Amino acid sequence: MKAHAGQAEIARVCERIESLGLQAHIIPGEQRTAIGITGNQGPMDPADFEQLPGVAEAIRVSKPYKLVSRETKPENTVVKVHGVAVGGERLVLCGGPCSVESRDQILESARAVKAGGGDLLRGGAYKPRTSPYSFQGMGEEGLRYLADAREETGLGIVTEAIDTETFELVERYADCIQIGARNMQNFSLLRRAGRSRKPVLLKRGMSSTLEEFLMAAEYILAEGNYNVILCERGVRTFADHTRNTLDLSVVPAVQSLSHLPIIVDPSHGTGKRDKVTPMAVASVAAGAAGLIVEMHPDPDRALSDGYQSLDPGQFAEMAEECRAVAELLASRRRAAVR
Amino acid sequence: MKAHAGQAEIARVCERIESLGLQAHIIPGEQRTAIGITGNQGPMDPADFEQLPGVAEAIRVSKPYKLVSRETKPENTVVKVHGVAVGGERLVLCGGPCSVESRDQILESARAVKAGGGDLLRGGAYKPRTSPYSFQGMGEEGLRYLADAREETGLGIVTEAIDTETFELVERYADCIQIGARNMQNFSLLRRAGRSRKPVLLKRGMSSTLEEFLMAAEYILAEGNYNVILCERGVRTFADHTRNTLDLSVVPAVQSLSHLPIIVDPSHGTGKRDKVTPMAVASVAAGAAGLIVEMHPDPDRALSDGYQSLDPGQFAEMAEECRAVAELLASRRRAAVR
Amino acid sequence: MKAHAGQAEIARVCERIESLGLQAHIIPGEQRTAIGITGNQGPMDPADFEQLPGVAEAIRVSKPYKLVSRETKPENTVVKVHGVAVGGERLVLCGGPCSVESRDQILESARAVKAGGGDLLRGGAYKPRTSPYSFQGMGEEGLRYLADAREETGLGIVTEAIDTETFELVERYADCIQIGARNMQNFSLLRRAGRSRKPVLLKRGMSSTLEEFLMAAEYILAEGNYNVILCERGVRTFADHTRNTLDLSVVPAVQSLSHLPIIVDPSHGTGKRDKVTPMAVASVAAGAAGLIVEMHPDPDRALSDGYQSLDPGQFAEMAEECRAVAELLASRRRAAVR
Amino acid sequence: MKAHAGQAEIARVCERIESLGLQAHIIPGEQRTAIGITGNQGPMDPADFEQLPGVAEAIRVSKPYKLVSRETKPENTVVKVHGVAVGGERLVLCGGPCSVESRDQILESARAVKAGGGDLLRGGAYKPRTSPYSFQGMGEEGLRYLADAREETGLGIVTEAIDTETFELVERYADCIQIGARNMQNFSLLRRAGRSRKPVLLKRGMSSTLEEFLMAAEYILAEGNYNVILCERGVRTFADHTRNTLDLSVVPAVQSLSHLPIIVDPSHGTGKRDKVTPMAVASVAAGAAGLIVEMHPDPDRALSDGYQSLDPGQFAEMAEECRAVAELLASRRRAAVR
Repeated sequence: MKAHAGQAEIARVCERIESLGLQAHIIPGEQRTAIGITGNQGPMDPADFEQLPGVAEAIRVSKPYKLVSRETKPENTVVKVHGVAVGGERLVLCGGPCSVESRDQILESARAVKAGGGDLLRGGAYKPRTSPYSFQGMGEEGLRYLADAREETGLGIVTEAIDTETFELVERYADCIQIGARNMQNFSLLRRAGRSRKPVLLKRGMSSTLEEFLMAAEYILAEGNYNVILCERGVRTFADHTRNTLDLSVVPAVQSLSHLPIIVDPSHGTGKRDKVTPMAVASVAAGAAGLIVEMHPDPDRALSDGYQSLDPGQFAEMAEECRAVAELLASRRRAAVR
Repeated sequence: MKAHAGQAEIARVCERIESLGLQAHIIPGEQRTAIGITGNQGPMDPADFEQLPGVAEAIRVSKPYKLVSRETKPENTVVKVHGVAVGGERLVLCGGPCSVESRDQILESARAVKAGGGDLLRGGAYKPRTSPYSFQGMGEEGLRYLADAREETGLGIVTEAIDTETFELVERYADCIQIGARNMQNFSLLRRAGRSRKPVLLKRGMSSTLEEFLMAAEYILAEGNYNVILCERGVRTFADHTRNTLDLSVVPAVQSLSHLPIIVDPSHGTGKRDKVTPMAVASVAAGAAGLIVEMHPDPDRALSDGYQSLDPGQFAEMAEECRAVAELLASRRRAAVR
Repeated sequence: MKAHAGQAEIARVCERIESLGLQAHIIPGEQRTAIGITGNQGPMDPADFEQLPGVAEAIRVSKPYKLVSRETKPENTVVKVHGVAVGGERLVLCGGPCSVESRDQILESARAVKAGGGDLLRGGAYKPRTSPYSFQGMGEEGLRYLADAREETGLGIVTEAIDTETFELVERYADCIQIGARNMQNFSLLRRAGRSRKPVLLKRGMSSTLEEFLMAAEYILAEGNYNVILCERGVRTFADHTRNTLDLSVVPAVQSLSHLPIIVDPSHGTGKRDKVTPMAVASVAAGAAGLIVEMHPDPDRALSDGYQSLDPGQFAEMAEECRAVAELLASRRRAAVR
Repeated sequence: MKAHAGQAEIARVCERIESLGLQAHIIPGEQRTAIGITGNQGPMDPADFEQLPGVAEAIRVSKPYKLVSRETKPENTVVKVHGVAVGGERLVLCGGPCSVESRDQILESARAVKAGGGDLLRGGAYKPRTSPYSFQGMGEEGLRYLADAREETGLGIVTEAIDTETFELVERYADCIQIGARNMQNFSLLRRAGRSRKPVLLKRGMSSTLEEFLMAAEYILAEGNYNVILCERGVRTFADHTRNTLDLSVVPAVQSLSHLPIIVDPSHGTGKRDKVTPMAVASVAAGAAGLIVEMHPDPDRALSDGYQSLDPGQFAEMAEECRAVAELLASRRRAAVR
């Protein structure tokens, strides 16, 4: 739509789309609103829409992902999580433990994230674990402790939903719902997330191509939830010096194909504490909109993933270094624009 | 348990296990019954059980997968699907289309599978698709057509359950419930399958290690369903001459670590019609207990996966070749035993 | 060329090719001779050659590999190694130790290969080793012992050349010169092998695509040596239950694209003794023209690769099983042709 | 050795090592000299050396790579290339075309590298190409043009040696000899490079583990050349949005295990022009000592790799951005030390 297009014009375009038996998707942007069309069986004629008032241009999206594509919406999407803008000018840092282990542990974590310069708190109440005999998370009790931590620190909560059964519970407490790597192609869960009004953090699957990753996001947008944050967390390769191989090139690759923001998880992406900070800084330099980093008040006693968790001091140092690089790059970019 | 151990002795062992706050898993075998124990936090003393009547031996399972391990049950497990023994002496051939597309199509497919020497019918009513805009399966209507095909041909049905919501419906119609590669670590779905009384066909994930594959099966057994068939269907690698890289070495590897039967899917494993038969025969030669192969009455018009589907004539030829090799190897094995 | 084309006609075609400043490659076949052309910068006109006497057809090769392509020569190439036909009707079995360790060891190995039904003897005198401090092979002394073993048993020798410096020495003793996986893109070594009159066994690189594999063979043929045997030996993936992932689908893939014979090395392809025989039989079932298998008189004392070497008894059993499957498949194929 | 140890003491230690039939490797450092020992069959007694004058400590190296290990030499190695310190405080930028194509092209390139803030000039005179029919480089003529470019601009030259035959020629002209990814395990070439007095730039192989990478460097050091620069250039994975997957985590991983400097090649590492700059900046942020980047005066007309080459303007921008980040991180590090 044109920048000055009003509600009435948008409504009229949607009406026209729906009158053809198709779905209209209103994706708001800072400057202009984009309206995506899905449900068509074959190519459509742009002329059908271009003569409607307020329409700037009707574009045929050449990619299999439609709503996710930058062709549909050239402007970057900024996703608001508990007041924090992900994908905007400022680097977003989300920190916290792999799992919520107790009220004290998550409160202490939240304070450390806040003190260390973090913006959001992560922590799993439902954990997908390779073994049925491993700790599976505290469930709703964990969610309640997360809410307590939010209340005390003001930090928004990012926590994982692992199935449709417990989705609603997670949705009730979370400010941003994480879909983990193992569930990237759990299409029922993606559809459920698409019907949520909460933002979704979608992690790339362990052996997902870029196209599959964007198609997974498309499942969520196709159901009407346009607040999706993508997250690179390492892929599986032959390399054995890290737990996964962090594929940072996906950051600029996503940015050229999609309007959605992309962040990086250097904790799972390396699986080794001493590699987290260098790769966090590298992620920022590659252009990531944010980071999600495991931090535990006492990593060596963590119930899960302790070997890849930073302690509070390391988290604060990492945050400072990342912010310094992010600000340098942003100031250079602003200078270039002028 | 000793070969001659009776119900009373088995019950007494289970009672003892449960009195310790643990779970007992009775896994029946042709010669002897195995009783798995889960729920213990640390190592247990074998002597606690070895003096009970009927107990042959108490073994500490060294692997992270317990019930799945051959240490727990040295004998091969034979899974019965609609009267067909999977993991027994005879090679089991399951054929059919990727998706149920119509009543005629699945009936025609079933007749071709039967005529071509197949034992079981495959066909998806719920399809996990990379794109939200692709054909997602016929749902319950498809299941009903599968049941019609079973009634006419007598072939048992293998069909996929993609989520917990539709699991019960699939369970009602299927003789064997398939869990697909993308869902290998959908732990809620695995647990649901573990509470089913129907056999489960578990496909290896695209980037799953052998240990993760066996741990996924463990989720099912841990809930009480011991009728699990494993299935290799190719893994994701750099190689681009096939859609996936069929890792046949996993067949003998599974057989040495687990008592569960393993079959192969050379259709997804190669993604190319002209590679299916050579890899099917190779799978049999590697020791697979069976094959699951895509066959469509008219592959070029299939709604999904046509490029990797055999036509009825090719299916029959493949079946004949595979049976010939299976019988040769079985007769050599029998001769060796004598 | 037509089937009845004589030397004079072939010579005249070559003359014409060379008069255009190009290279002519006479690749003899059982029925017909193919003449490959290389050196052209762009497409050529088939009519330039089709009117010459004896020419059946002039074909533009669509692939980047020209001489290797089945378009150039539709008939299978059969490579003779010390009188043994590789790529013909009969399965070829090559066995022997990873390295020549002593005269006794290689003689004993050769006798065991012969007794076990093998056709050719393998054994490395020059070993490419990951560590500069590991045993690097016996060099020329090893080659002499191989020659002694050939003299005693009559078995042809397959042994590796690791660099151009020692190539001539290896060439003098070997009946077939192996180029190892690490050297698959050592183009100087490939060119040197191309100038040899001895057959070459070219192993697929650890992360080589099919096209790169065929292009590596093209380097050898382009220099005038058309006696190349390809060999699959496993590729590097995330899977950790075997040392490499044996990609058997490359066997039918090579056969559809190239006229060169392809064999399999299940020893490096699995890296584990107990997986060698199942994968050897699977290779034969997939259509491999032969196998190259590590066998050591006393595997547990081998200086290299003992954990993946069969002992003489296991080798003989494997050979018997493979031959049985090969004969079954060949007799079925003969029946199908009739 | 102790920091104040003199030549005589060093000589005496070497004498002692050699008297035991072993090799001594004097590896000089800024503060202290390390003496590596190779050739021992089993563990040695540190006490044999610790009582010698000037010896600070005798350490058993626990890794399979000995001279390369940081255990042998805790201090970072700084390699001087034509006066430029690689591995020191200042980021080193090497730029230039994939291949030398003409005198004009390489002179123009050199001027652009210099103008754009580069320190060294790259350009291949001998090119390893997948196809025997592709442009293979200008050979000695190309080397002469590189020397001309050095004379005019003062930039040191990094150029590849692809085999032992042409090594001496490359060595004569180059300031730093590159060993390419395909040759990382060409052990004869590594040994030849180890006997050179010129610094060596060793690229990681396409499917090389970290240990194999360090073992390849060990081959060079074991022959007496301690001036080795390591280079990450992407590994082969399933991911298809880039030509290779740039594994930046190997940068901190090398730094913790080895004293050798590591740089990154974001051009081959991504294979796409628009990903080069983000990944270059990310490499610097991950801690790389330098970058080697393809730049061509007219990328769209390059004879090879044009699609991944920057143009002079893009190179200059990248250099500026990388230097800004490098300086920021260095100033933070200096502040932290104080």
